[in-house]
Amino acid sequence: MAPLRIDPIAEARRHWTERWGDEPARPMAAVTSIMRAQQVLLARLNELLRPLGLTFPRYEALMLLSFTRAGALPLGKIGERLQVHRTSVTNIIDKLEAGGLVRRVPHEGDRRATLARITEEGLETARRATALLNDAAFGIDALADEDQEAVTTLLRALRVDAGDFVDVAPARR
Amino acid sequence: MAPLRIDPIAEARRHWTERWGDEPARPMAAVTSIMRAQQVLLARLNELLRPLGLTFPRYEALMLLSFTRAGALPLGKIGERLQVHRTSVTNIIDKLEAGGLVRRVPHEGDRRATLARITEEGLETARRATALLNDAAFGIDALADEDQEAVTTLLRALRVDAGDFVDVAPARR
Repeated sequence: MAPLRIDPIAEARRHWTERWGDEPARPMAAVTSIMRAQQVLLARLNELLRPLGLTFPRYEALMLLSFTRAGALPLGKIGERLQVHRTSVTNIIDKLEAGGLVRRVPHEGDRRATLARITEEGLETARRATALLNDAAFGIDALADEDQEAVTTLLRALRVDAGDFVDVAPARR
Repeated sequence: MAPLRIDPIAEARRHWTERWGDEPARPMAAVTSIMRAQQVLLARLNELLRPLGLTFPRYEALMLLSFTRAGALPLGKIGERLQVHRTSVTNIIDKLEAGGLVRRVPHEGDRRATLARITEEGLETARRATALLNDAAFGIDALADEDQEAVTTLLRALRVDAGDFVDVAPARR
């Protein structure tokens, strides 16, 4: 798509400010910026990962498994850690299993639970994918180093607010 | 889902730093933070909009139309401005039309093009939806005012880099 001659978010913000004032215009612009940034980044990362048969969510699951000592986790735990719903986990693991990158194995201690275990090929694919993404600075090298750091710090408050994890300082609501 | 006892992004960053150093760990954390923030915000906004039969992308299309003088735009223009693909625009307009919020009308000057025109009910729904989202500070009130502003400013460089619009200063690549 050809670039627009105006910043569409700045334009929306101008409309907002005119009609409803600065107060709602500011969070509207911030949220719309996050939505668009995610869209840009996800497209870039999926593009980088496509030759390896991965998408970014599948890559995240693969890395999570690769970081565990046993190379395996119960599916429920994968959902908790990736903060995605059960059905999404099932879909992600199905795709990874079809590609030979993980295998479902029974949980030794709990007959009702299933583990996903990363395979040798999964480990090798995770290594290659990580090299690609690291080299591409995860698609965000348009931001200066300190600006990348600032993004992480600023958005942390939202993740705490969403109940993603227990912060040392109590969340605002 | 119960909150985790550790910040999953900080945990991933620790693994990254150990294996590949600070350099790729920093952008990884920033990008993963944006992905998660988007997920949290989209869920909140969709939840707020559900009683009105809207999703956030449908709401964005409705607002875009409400801001035009004629209340109508060609479908191609809607895609450009919302920066989504043609098929997504078609889907969004289909849903809005089914709800009586927009109507497809022929383009007077161009027989091949179709316009989407917002209806009276669409305008009223847009007003009610905006009141809901403005009151909820678009789900991002966990961030202080200046932090919301900083997010918009920081992510602008990524949008310019993605070619979303032409910046006054030339983009880095």
